[in-house]
Amino acid sequence: MELWYTEYQTENLGLSVRIKETLYAGRSEYQEVAVVDSLEFGRMLVLDGVFQTSVFDEFIYHEMIAHVPLFVHPDPRTVLIIGGGDGGTAREVVKHQSIEVAEMVEIDGLVVDVSKKYLPEISVALNDNHPKLQLKIGDGIKHMEEVENKYDVIIVDCSDPIGPGAGLFTHAFYQNVHKALRPDGLFVQQTESPFFHQDLIKRLKADIASLFPITRLYLANIPLYPSGLHCFTIGSKQYDPLHTDRNRIPDNLDTRYYNRELQKSCFALPNFVQDLLK
Amino acid sequence: MELWYTEYQTENLGLSVRIKETLYAGRSEYQEVAVVDSLEFGRMLVLDGVFQTSVFDEFIYHEMIAHVPLFVHPDPRTVLIIGGGDGGTAREVVKHQSIEVAEMVEIDGLVVDVSKKYLPEISVALNDNHPKLQLKIGDGIKHMEEVENKYDVIIVDCSDPIGPGAGLFTHAFYQNVHKALRPDGLFVQQTESPFFHQDLIKRLKADIASLFPITRLYLANIPLYPSGLHCFTIGSKQYDPLHTDRNRIPDNLDTRYYNRELQKSCFALPNFVQDLLK
Repeated sequence: MELWYTEYQTENLGLSVRIKETLYAGRSEYQEVAVVDSLEFGRMLVLDGVFQTSVFDEFIYHEMIAHVPLFVHPDPRTVLIIGGGDGGTAREVVKHQSIEVAEMVEIDGLVVDVSKKYLPEISVALNDNHPKLQLKIGDGIKHMEEVENKYDVIIVDCSDPIGPGAGLFTHAFYQNVHKALRPDGLFVQQTESPFFHQDLIKRLKADIASLFPITRLYLANIPLYPSGLHCFTIGSKQYDPLHTDRNRIPDNLDTRYYNRELQKSCFALPNFVQDLLK
Repeated sequence: MELWYTEYQTENLGLSVRIKETLYAGRSEYQEVAVVDSLEFGRMLVLDGVFQTSVFDEFIYHEMIAHVPLFVHPDPRTVLIIGGGDGGTAREVVKHQSIEVAEMVEIDGLVVDVSKKYLPEISVALNDNHPKLQLKIGDGIKHMEEVENKYDVIIVDCSDPIGPGAGLFTHAFYQNVHKALRPDGLFVQQTESPFFHQDLIKRLKADIASLFPITRLYLANIPLYPSGLHCFTIGSKQYDPLHTDRNRIPDNLDTRYYNRELQKSCFALPNFVQDLLK
């Protein structure tokens, strides 16, 4: 029997994937958590029916959400990941020599457990208990309320702005992110598709630009996500991504997507994306 | 009743679109031709069940297949489009002041007729009988066999390498393209997805590089196509896309995706794409 699953990316558009096997299906107090093995994308983490990550293309999202901001900052020592329970962002973050501590605050311990068991390629830094990594299961929104002047870089590696992640897309949250950053700190957040989430991107840009002197958007190609084009928004107190000294970027990062040229080119926006930000 | 159509992008992956109405369904001697009105992508041209173009995102493909090579060449006067029956590439090509003649050779007159009637935004240059445009219904492969030393730029705006378009992805065809170009001419072809068509891209790169001193690949984000990431390959006798003088590029092209920055950044390839070309 051929089993297919269709993720409804919008009301009128679905991505249909052929499934070999369901490896896990359960629920936490926050969401339905599943791991399926798909023919095209390999093993995938699915939360509330939405594809989060797959072994086929996860390297793109995780490399781009980690390395781009970590090289915008000239010397990141203390980094925070909010969300990211699959461990992929942590895996990339700990590659940076300058980093002394990478804290993670993930709300759903089930996502961590399931990723450690069924997605070992992605969660390797969690399984290995990497010495730089400090994982805490808890509420990232609350954590931002409580912390001040601590982080060089904050990476908001969250799911969509519905369900547990909704509060991570608010002005109040960005105010607390600003407060939690050091005076020259910066943060990045995944901010969905420039094709299908235009109102959201405009609003977030306005919210972030009202708090940070520098706001920049960059792009990556992620086949699993709606439209295949995904954007990330950086709010920065001092360092401008467009003026990053790329000579600092080493050749030996062991990345399958990210490279020194992309650090610059990912900020080159097509006209229709530039129009969103005016 | 809610009608959906699923295009099988691979054996194991489908793009499912909700359809408002079928506007046309027929067949030529070459293929099944349909135009459907989808909720997410608007009106779409479908050939043998495969999505060719949609009013929602056609600007991306047509701008990138036309403007990138036309600005690599410092002064294109005589241009040929092979395929492109929907007229979108022609619409972009005729925006170039330097061009005196843009010839089109499309094999399937039905595609032209259906596009003129149901996709007027795309086929505007065909409907308006643009003075620079010379449309011929005929076989582009045969035309390349018969012509020598004529074109500055050839744009191969074809469908997939199965069916009528298969012969456009062969070494023999590229030899004839080389012969049909002037001594400093160049050509571009759409060359599918770097995620799903890796063997094809490797083979084409080898074929083209065996004939042309300069072979370059560039990228664009096209939600309608498999993976959302699409590539184009340029074979050039003299001009290197990586050394294009972008000061020549005007501001007033009236494009919704393409711009001067993308002329350069679209050639910045993620590591996994660079690996395909080694």
